[in-house]
Amino acid sequence: MKTFITDDFLLQNEFSKKLYHGYAADVPIIDYHNHLPPNEISENRVFENITQVWLAGDHYKWRAMRALGINEKYITGDASDKDKFLKWAETVPYTVRNPLYHWTHLELQRYFDIDSLLSPKNAEEIYDRTAFMLQQTSHHTVGLLQEKKVEYLCTTDDPTNTLEHHKSISKKEISPKVFPTFRPDKAFAVEDTPSYVVYIAKLGTVVGSDIKNYDDLLAALVQRIDYFHEIGGRLADHGLEQMYYVEKDDFNSDTLFKKVMDKNNLSAEEVYFFKAKILLFLSREYHRRGWTQQFHLGPIRNNNKRLLASLGPDTGFDSMGDLHQAKTMSGFLNELDSTNELTKTILYNLNPSDNEVFATMAGNFNDGSIKGKVQFGSAWWFLDQKDGMEKQINTLSNMGLLSCFVGMLTDSRSFLSFTRHEYFRRILCNLIGKDVANGELPADEKWLGKIVGDICYHNAKDYFGL
Amino acid sequence: MKTFITDDFLLQNEFSKKLYHGYAADVPIIDYHNHLPPNEISENRVFENITQVWLAGDHYKWRAMRALGINEKYITGDASDKDKFLKWAETVPYTVRNPLYHWTHLELQRYFDIDSLLSPKNAEEIYDRTAFMLQQTSHHTVGLLQEKKVEYLCTTDDPTNTLEHHKSISKKEISPKVFPTFRPDKAFAVEDTPSYVVYIAKLGTVVGSDIKNYDDLLAALVQRIDYFHEIGGRLADHGLEQMYYVEKDDFNSDTLFKKVMDKNNLSAEEVYFFKAKILLFLSREYHRRGWTQQFHLGPIRNNNKRLLASLGPDTGFDSMGDLHQAKTMSGFLNELDSTNELTKTILYNLNPSDNEVFATMAGNFNDGSIKGKVQFGSAWWFLDQKDGMEKQINTLSNMGLLSCFVGMLTDSRSFLSFTRHEYFRRILCNLIGKDVANGELPADEKWLGKIVGDICYHNAKDYFGL
Amino acid sequence: MKTFITDDFLLQNEFSKKLYHGYAADVPIIDYHNHLPPNEISENRVFENITQVWLAGDHYKWRAMRALGINEKYITGDASDKDKFLKWAETVPYTVRNPLYHWTHLELQRYFDIDSLLSPKNAEEIYDRTAFMLQQTSHHTVGLLQEKKVEYLCTTDDPTNTLEHHKSISKKEISPKVFPTFRPDKAFAVEDTPSYVVYIAKLGTVVGSDIKNYDDLLAALVQRIDYFHEIGGRLADHGLEQMYYVEKDDFNSDTLFKKVMDKNNLSAEEVYFFKAKILLFLSREYHRRGWTQQFHLGPIRNNNKRLLASLGPDTGFDSMGDLHQAKTMSGFLNELDSTNELTKTILYNLNPSDNEVFATMAGNFNDGSIKGKVQFGSAWWFLDQKDGMEKQINTLSNMGLLSCFVGMLTDSRSFLSFTRHEYFRRILCNLIGKDVANGELPADEKWLGKIVGDICYHNAKDYFGL
Repeated sequence: MKTFITDDFLLQNEFSKKLYHGYAADVPIIDYHNHLPPNEISENRVFENITQVWLAGDHYKWRAMRALGINEKYITGDASDKDKFLKWAETVPYTVRNPLYHWTHLELQRYFDIDSLLSPKNAEEIYDRTAFMLQQTSHHTVGLLQEKKVEYLCTTDDPTNTLEHHKSISKKEISPKVFPTFRPDKAFAVEDTPSYVVYIAKLGTVVGSDIKNYDDLLAALVQRIDYFHEIGGRLADHGLEQMYYVEKDDFNSDTLFKKVMDKNNLSAEEVYFFKAKILLFLSREYHRRGWTQQFHLGPIRNNNKRLLASLGPDTGFDSMGDLHQAKTMSGFLNELDSTNELTKTILYNLNPSDNEVFATMAGNFNDGSIKGKVQFGSAWWFLDQKDGMEKQINTLSNMGLLSCFVGMLTDSRSFLSFTRHEYFRRILCNLIGKDVANGELPADEKWLGKIVGDICYHNAKDYFGL
Repeated sequence: MKTFITDDFLLQNEFSKKLYHGYAADVPIIDYHNHLPPNEISENRVFENITQVWLAGDHYKWRAMRALGINEKYITGDASDKDKFLKWAETVPYTVRNPLYHWTHLELQRYFDIDSLLSPKNAEEIYDRTAFMLQQTSHHTVGLLQEKKVEYLCTTDDPTNTLEHHKSISKKEISPKVFPTFRPDKAFAVEDTPSYVVYIAKLGTVVGSDIKNYDDLLAALVQRIDYFHEIGGRLADHGLEQMYYVEKDDFNSDTLFKKVMDKNNLSAEEVYFFKAKILLFLSREYHRRGWTQQFHLGPIRNNNKRLLASLGPDTGFDSMGDLHQAKTMSGFLNELDSTNELTKTILYNLNPSDNEVFATMAGNFNDGSIKGKVQFGSAWWFLDQKDGMEKQINTLSNMGLLSCFVGMLTDSRSFLSFTRHEYFRRILCNLIGKDVANGELPADEKWLGKIVGDICYHNAKDYFGL
Repeated sequence: MKTFITDDFLLQNEFSKKLYHGYAADVPIIDYHNHLPPNEISENRVFENITQVWLAGDHYKWRAMRALGINEKYITGDASDKDKFLKWAETVPYTVRNPLYHWTHLELQRYFDIDSLLSPKNAEEIYDRTAFMLQQTSHHTVGLLQEKKVEYLCTTDDPTNTLEHHKSISKKEISPKVFPTFRPDKAFAVEDTPSYVVYIAKLGTVVGSDIKNYDDLLAALVQRIDYFHEIGGRLADHGLEQMYYVEKDDFNSDTLFKKVMDKNNLSAEEVYFFKAKILLFLSREYHRRGWTQQFHLGPIRNNNKRLLASLGPDTGFDSMGDLHQAKTMSGFLNELDSTNELTKTILYNLNPSDNEVFATMAGNFNDGSIKGKVQFGSAWWFLDQKDGMEKQINTLSNMGLLSCFVGMLTDSRSFLSFTRHEYFRRILCNLIGKDVANGELPADEKWLGKIVGDICYHNAKDYFGL
C-alpha cells in the first residue's frame, strides 16, 4: 500500500492527474545536463550498496547531516558504508519539508519498490534489500537509465577529456545515447596561476602541440570543440559568478596569457578581461556549429576554507551570491548578437531574486529565428525543489512563453536521480491543472496535454539537435 | 455561452464575487497614467482592423511572437495587416499562462463580444467580425473609452508638446477628461550630446526664447510646467534606471550645460550630477503646484542593439535591471523633504525583488499631512499580470496601508486595454475575498466593499485633484 | 462569541488544528530577543491605560497612522493618551491586510478578552475597560509575562549597562528568567566622532579605568562580556547594514582609535576597517564562552532627517536596504571558522530578497559539531507578518533543516506582544498541516508534533544554554 508516494503524488486535482498520466508520465527523458561519470555507464558499474550510489557524492545530503549535528566521520569520513547509511536514515525524518525528504522516498519507491518511510527503525532492512537489488542487472547503471527511458544524456566534461568512455558507449549501441558537454571553465581560470600553467601544459599534450601564446590557446580550444562535435557533443556549459563583459580593449590577451605562463599573477581587472575575451571567442565558435551554450550564473564557492582544505571542492560549502547580473549579461549577449553570432542560449540563475531579470533578459534576444532561442533555464541546485520549480515556471510563464521551454534536467552526480524528471513533470502538470481548476485556463485537455508533452520531451528533442 | 471569460472570471469564492459585482465593477475609471496618443482621441480615430488597434504598437505581443520563432516580417515588417493577425492568432494558443492569454480573450470578449478562444481556426472570422465592429461609432476611440466609463485619462507628454490635442478635446466637452502628464526625461538626457543640443533648440522654440544657460533651461521648464498646469495637468512622470542623488556639489550645472551645448560629451559623473540637480529642481516645482510626481525605476533599455538599429526604441528589447535602488531614493526624497518640498509621490519598481524596498521606502516619507502621500505604485510593465499584481498588493498590504492605494492604471498605448482595470479589480476582490474565506479578515462586506471602492476609484479621485 | 480571532484562527485544515492545539499552544515561551525595558519588569510596572503600553513606543502603529494622514500630534505629540487611542481606533479599520490588524485584535482578545473589532464606535468603551484591567495584578508587567508562560526572556543591552535591573529581577526569583544580551554597536560606532568620544569615556567609567588605546578598549569589552556572562547573558546581538569584512590590514586599529579619540573624523575606509576588526575580536570572545551571536543585517536608518531631527531615532523612519550581503558575510564567517572560532550564529535579513542567500550561507558553516549551529533567523521587523514568516519558514525548509530551527522571538518593546509567538505557532502548524492535506507530508501526527514542539520551544532551550 502506497501511503505517501502514491500514483497521484503532487497532483492535487483531477485535471492535473489527467495531464500527468496522459501526457507526461510516459514520454522519454532527455537529460541534457548532468554530472554523471561516463566511465560508470561504459563499464555498466555495479554498486555494492545504496551508500555508494546515494551518499558517496551527494553534497545535498551532506549539508543536511551537518546541520543536524552529525559528525563528519559519518558523512565523508572513514565510517563504514553501512554506518553512513544508518546515520542518513537517522537524518531523514528531520528533513521534513526539505526536498531531500521527497527525493529520498521517491527514489526508494521508484527504484526499489519501497513504500515505507526511511527511519532508524527500518534502516537495516532497507540497506539489505537495496544491496540485494543493486546486484541485479536491472540495477546496474545502464539498467537504471533504461528503466527510466533515458533517451539522451549529456555529461559535463573538461576540454582535456579524451571522451574515450563516450566513444566506447556509442560503439556498444546501448541506450541511452550519451554525449559530452564542453565545459571549459578551467581553460580560462587565470586567477590561479600555478594551476593554470599545469592545465595549459595538459591541454597542449591533449592537442599534440605546445601552447605558447594566445592564438595557440584558441586553436587548441577550437580543436577540442571540433573533437566534442565529432563525438556528438552539441552543448557547452559555463559556471560563473557573473557573466563577463568588457566594453574596451584595455589589455592585450596575448600579453596576459604570456604573463600567466611566466608564472605571474594577473590583477583582478586582467583576469576579468581575459575571461571575457575567451568567453566571447568560444561563444562564436559554438554559434558556428549550431551548438547550445549554457550559463550557470550566481554561486559563490568554497565559502568554508577550513573544510575546503580537508574535504576539497564540491563537498557542500558553496552557496548563493547576490551580485549584479543584468548589465554584464546584456552586454555580453548583445556583443554576440550584434554580429549575428549569438547561438541558442540557456541562462540559469542560482539566486531566485534574479528569476525575473533572467527571464526578461532572455526575451531581449529572441529574434524570431528559432522557437525559444534564448531560454530562461530550469530551477537549478538550491532551487531544484517544488517551490523553486514553481517559481521558475511561473516567472517563465509570466515573462516569456512556457510553451517553448526545453524543460528539466537532473544536474546530478547520481544514477538514482532520474525521478527528478518525474518530480518536475508532476509539478508542471499540477500547476497547469490548478489554473484550469481556478478558471484561469480553459479545460482544453488536448492542447494543454500537447504543451506538457512539448515541455517534457519534444521541445528539447527539437531544440538541441542531438 | 461564456466558457472561459465568465462573469466570475478570477473570482474564486463567494465573498470575492460580492465584492467585485457590488463595489468594483461599476465605478468609473481614472486612468492616471498611459501612453495613448491624444490626437487619436481628439480626431476620434477609426481603426480599419484589429491589427491596427491591437498589434501595431504592442511590444508584449511582439516579444511573444519572436519567442515562438515567428519572422519579424509578420511582427513589425511589411506583411499585410491580415497576415500579421493570422500569425498572432497562431501564437495565442502558445501563450497559455502568459498574461497575453488573459488579456487577449478578455479584450475580445468585452470589446467584441467574442467568447471563443482565438486560434488559427477562427482567426479569419474574428478578423472580419472585429473589422466590421470597429467601423461602428461605439468602436471609434471615444466610444471605446466611454463604454468603459473612463472619467479621467492622463497621457504622457514631453515638455515640448504643444498639447493642442488636449486643448481640442477639452473644448469638445466629451468625456473622458484628458489631461497631459509632464514627462521631462529628454530635458536632462545629457548623455547624448547631439540629441540634447537638438532638443534644447526645440524647447527654445516652444518657449519663444533662446536657451543659452542653465538658468534659461530652468526658466523654460518652469514655463512648460505652468503651461501643462493651465491645460489641467497635475502629474509628472520620470523613467529612470535609478533615482539620481548627489551629496556634494562637485560640479557646476551651468558649466556642464554649456559644455554640452558646445557639443562636448560629459563624463558619467557629470551626467549623473546634472540629472540629479535638474530632477531636484523639477520636484520642487511640482511641490509648489501641488502636483503628483511619479518615478518609474529599474529598466535597462535597448539591450539588443542590432534590432534597436533596425526597429528603433520601445520595440521589445528592454528588460529589468538589478541595480541598487534604496540609498539614492532615500537621499533624493529626503533632500526634498528636509525643506518640506516633497510633493505627493508614486514610486514604481520594475524588478519585483525591489517590491519591499519600495513599499517600506514610501513609509519613511508619510508624515500625516495627507492620506497616502507617498505611494508604492501599481505593478508595472512585466509585472502587470496576476502574479505581479498580487505580489504588489500583498507587499503594500504588509508594509503599508492598502486602503490608501490609488490603484490601477493601464500604462498602455492601446485603446483596447481598459479591461486591464477590470482585471485588476477582479484580482483585488479575489485576494480580499480569499482572506475572508480563510478567516484572515472578518466578513464585513460593507467595510471591505468601501475599501475596494476607494482603491478602484475614490482614492485616485481625491488624491490627484484633477 | 468569537467571530474573528477564533480558537482556530489561521488554522485552515484539521491536521493544522491537531498540531497547534496538541503540540504548540501550551509549550512555554523562550523570547530570546526583544527590546523590553528590564526596569519595567523589576519594578512590575503598572500602566495607566492602553495607550501607554500599546502606542507609546510602537513605530509600526505610528507609520500606519502617518500613512492615513493623521497629524503627528496624535502620534508622538502632546495629545492626551485618550485622544491618541481614539485616533488609533480610527486607523485600525483602515489597516485591513496589514499585520497590525491581526496583532491588534489578537492582543485585545488574549490580554483583555475583547472579541469585537476595534473602531471609533467602541473605542471609548475599550479604552475604559482596558484601563480598568491594567490596574489588576494580572496585568502588571510580571503578570502579563507569566500569563503567557514566558520562561526565558533576553533583553538587548549596551555594554555600559549596569544590568542592575537584571540582577534585581534574578534576586526576586520570579519568573520569567530575564537575561541581558550584549549589543555593542555603539562600542565601534566610530563614524560619529563626538558621540564616540563621549561613549568611550562612559565605558571607561563603567570598567573603572581610562581607555587610552585600542588594547584598553578590547580589555574593557572583555570585562563587560564577562560581566554579562556572570549575570546569565549567553547571547550577543549586532545591528548592521552589512557584515564588515576586510581581507588586508590596510590600517592599524590602535592608530585609528587614537585618531578618533583626538577628535578627528575617520574616512569611510577607516571606519569600515575598525568595525571589521572589533567585530572579529568580539566574535572570538563569544566563541570562547559558548555564546550565540546574532546579526541583524540590512536596514537603512533615519531616512527622513527632518522627522529624525524633531522625533529622534527609532520613530518609524527606517526601512530596507538593498546592499550586497553574501561576500562579506562569507568572508567574516569564514575568517572565524578558519581557526575554529565560529560560535553559534543566527543570521537575520531585513530584505526578503536575501532570504535564500542567508539560508544557504548558514549551511556553509554547519560542520556537524552541534545541531543547527548556524541558523537562518526568524522573519524580522517588516517581515514579521504571516507572509514574511511563511516565506522564511519555506526558505529555511527548502535550503536547510526546518527541524533544527530555534523559532520565534518578539523583537518587541511592548509587554502585550507575546501573542506574536502564538501567531507564529499557528502559521507554522498551518503550513505543515497544509502539506499533509496536500499529500506533501505523511500524516504522522506524533513526529510532526515533535518537530513543532522542537521549533516552538525545545530547540531554543537546548541551543542557547540559558
